[in-house]
Amino acid sequence: MFIIDLSISSHMIQRPRGTRDFGPEEMEVRRHHEGMMRREAVLHGFKEIATPIFEHTELFTLKSGPGVVEEIYAFQDKGGREICLRPELTASVMRFFVNDLATLPRPLKLFYFGQCFRYERPQAGRYREFFQFGAEIIGNPTPETDAEAIGLAAAILERTGLKDYRIRIGHIGILKEMLAAAGVSGDAALPILQKLDKKAYAEAEGLMAQAGVDARAAEEIISTTNIIGPVSVLGSREGPASDYIRQVCEMLLAMGFSNVSVDLGVVRGLAYYTGMVFEVDAPKLGAEKQICGGGSYSLSELFGGEKVFSTGFAIGFDRTLLALQTEGVEFVKPGVTAFVVPIGDSVRSKAFQMVSELRRAGIAADVDLMRRGIGKSLKYAATIPSRYAVIVGEKELQSDSVTLRDMRSGEQSLVPTEELVAVLRA
Amino acid sequence: MFIIDLSISSHMIQRPRGTRDFGPEEMEVRRHHEGMMRREAVLHGFKEIATPIFEHTELFTLKSGPGVVEEIYAFQDKGGREICLRPELTASVMRFFVNDLATLPRPLKLFYFGQCFRYERPQAGRYREFFQFGAEIIGNPTPETDAEAIGLAAAILERTGLKDYRIRIGHIGILKEMLAAAGVSGDAALPILQKLDKKAYAEAEGLMAQAGVDARAAEEIISTTNIIGPVSVLGSREGPASDYIRQVCEMLLAMGFSNVSVDLGVVRGLAYYTGMVFEVDAPKLGAEKQICGGGSYSLSELFGGEKVFSTGFAIGFDRTLLALQTEGVEFVKPGVTAFVVPIGDSVRSKAFQMVSELRRAGIAADVDLMRRGIGKSLKYAATIPSRYAVIVGEKELQSDSVTLRDMRSGEQSLVPTEELVAVLRA
Repeated sequence: MFIIDLSISSHMIQRPRGTRDFGPEEMEVRRHHEGMMRREAVLHGFKEIATPIFEHTELFTLKSGPGVVEEIYAFQDKGGREICLRPELTASVMRFFVNDLATLPRPLKLFYFGQCFRYERPQAGRYREFFQFGAEIIGNPTPETDAEAIGLAAAILERTGLKDYRIRIGHIGILKEMLAAAGVSGDAALPILQKLDKKAYAEAEGLMAQAGVDARAAEEIISTTNIIGPVSVLGSREGPASDYIRQVCEMLLAMGFSNVSVDLGVVRGLAYYTGMVFEVDAPKLGAEKQICGGGSYSLSELFGGEKVFSTGFAIGFDRTLLALQTEGVEFVKPGVTAFVVPIGDSVRSKAFQMVSELRRAGIAADVDLMRRGIGKSLKYAATIPSRYAVIVGEKELQSDSVTLRDMRSGEQSLVPTEELVAVLRA
Repeated sequence: MFIIDLSISSHMIQRPRGTRDFGPEEMEVRRHHEGMMRREAVLHGFKEIATPIFEHTELFTLKSGPGVVEEIYAFQDKGGREICLRPELTASVMRFFVNDLATLPRPLKLFYFGQCFRYERPQAGRYREFFQFGAEIIGNPTPETDAEAIGLAAAILERTGLKDYRIRIGHIGILKEMLAAAGVSGDAALPILQKLDKKAYAEAEGLMAQAGVDARAAEEIISTTNIIGPVSVLGSREGPASDYIRQVCEMLLAMGFSNVSVDLGVVRGLAYYTGMVFEVDAPKLGAEKQICGGGSYSLSELFGGEKVFSTGFAIGFDRTLLALQTEGVEFVKPGVTAFVVPIGDSVRSKAFQMVSELRRAGIAADVDLMRRGIGKSLKYAATIPSRYAVIVGEKELQSDSVTLRDMRSGEQSLVPTEELVAVLRA
């Protein structure tokens, strides 16, 4: 038994640094967009899954290397287990797949929405607790699988109402094929690819020179990372990677997504990507402009499963909302349809009966809980906001009526109680 | 740069003990009920908020005492801050209120849905990561405020379809008034109240004897904790607490909630409850049968704010779902309306165009990504499940038609492409 000593606390407790509280209006916007993304995924035949907020730390060191521990919330639980708050969701989804879903018919088209956590310096658009929507198609490496994944990302962004964004599709194989032709293949190419992904050309050149790539080939490789435009920028370029991108783009065009560029500089510098890679930017966001990224990969064998090809992506939910805000996309302020005001104690029960009947009829309704007079109650009703006020008075009730007040125009009319639901629905 | 060594991992990584992954079908059920709860809250004029997954540990030691650290996921972040995964949400909501919402018009009617975490031995219906739906009304201590809170809990449980549950309402004042009359008041009564709440009568008697309560009064107090039934069980009992419960019950009856008992044994033994307390059981769940609990309280002054009366409750989402399962409440298996099967490579783009058109028309649709033959594709379509298959063949396309297969009856018919959306909507 613990008895609270009220004298010990008089300072405000703050939320942890880099996290956010979401108030009613912001939350309405967030749930609206979360719901839209979910509906779009379901329309596309994707199914939602969820995994725990924390995982064994090993899951992420296996995927991203031991260095990742520096950037995440990693700790020991009371049983001495090394656990951490998940920094992303693809690893968790693949763990779940390997543990429990590997025998389901393929392709498995999965999506998820939830919080992720990184211990990094908070700044505009970067939080320690942030939200991701993501999807994975676990099955086969076909161009149509990749088109289906990119198509879902595009359909979702279209649905949000965002105007200024661009989808850039690349293929890790194009630069890999060029490096291999220049004598650098396999894992040796990875550090170079990572520098190329970041457009750190001087460093990439240094690494290529070290690896024995001749200067002309190095120059051609670097200029390739700047090729961006419609699918025609591939020109007469040959090889499996170029052919693959052509097919992905053909499918996307058939699906009606025209806002797509080929960008041979997209590499995403992580060892587990196997082919197509793509990114989406919202240029208005400035330095932190990437709102979505993904590609085809192979991860399950890392977590003890068989090798399975997958394509997935994650949308940064917070940055997408920031981009929408930047574009001035507006939202309706949430509220209720009716606020019921009892005039005096004698009709209070009756008012509660009425508000309950409205709710059962599917009409969002609220009622005075503070025993305030009509003036203060109407003022409160305006802040919710409520579309109408239903004023319940003793005299009107004698003729089974209430006063309905239009909160916009201020007009009032007497409405028979039994017609109230129908009038408010109209 | 980290190069993954594939040889280091061949064991499966498990999810952390006491946590769960949710697969597609389970998730569909969970999102359905989460959505229902959210809609019901909005119908009642409550507004959603959200707070971070982790908080400063101090928030919970202030509310529940230093001992709580033993039961929660508490750790130091890289900056040396004492933080923890939230074990419940009321403290976070009141912190948010004190920090940012204290100037909003009252009453503030807030709700939330999210994960909470406790480090305890996992058992049936108890998880280390669990989900709560909750609501708080921040404003005034009036019987109608309490009725509004209990009414939302009741409306939500009604909406889930749960049949066998009971709402028990008590008032911490009734036993407090009796103890005060017997000479034990203020904080000295709290240990006794906690024992009474747990029906640990021998221990309660011992504490009362120690505190000088005479045997007859002690016996009457103990028998009071067993008073349960309709509001009439209050009989001619006088005092502010009894009068208050009568008013709460009158309001609930006016609102059409009849599944409500008065239970003078509900105390909830926590120092911050100030008046009405209530619990909801689903008896079919056995020992872990409580699915909801709440009451009126005063907490904000503990977190550095002014003293404000509030009433709130939390519904254990996982246990409520367990109770629904025990009652055999069934759910429709999720799926899509149409699965599009291209017969061969020449019509693949056309199939993707069609699936995209269906989705844009709001029809959930999927398409073959594995380049399988028609037999295997139809088999896969049945597992999703899809209501129809749309078979796209070269010959049929020449007359601008596709073959529509009813996946239940196996019947097939030729449908003009331009009529497909209308046919699938019918």
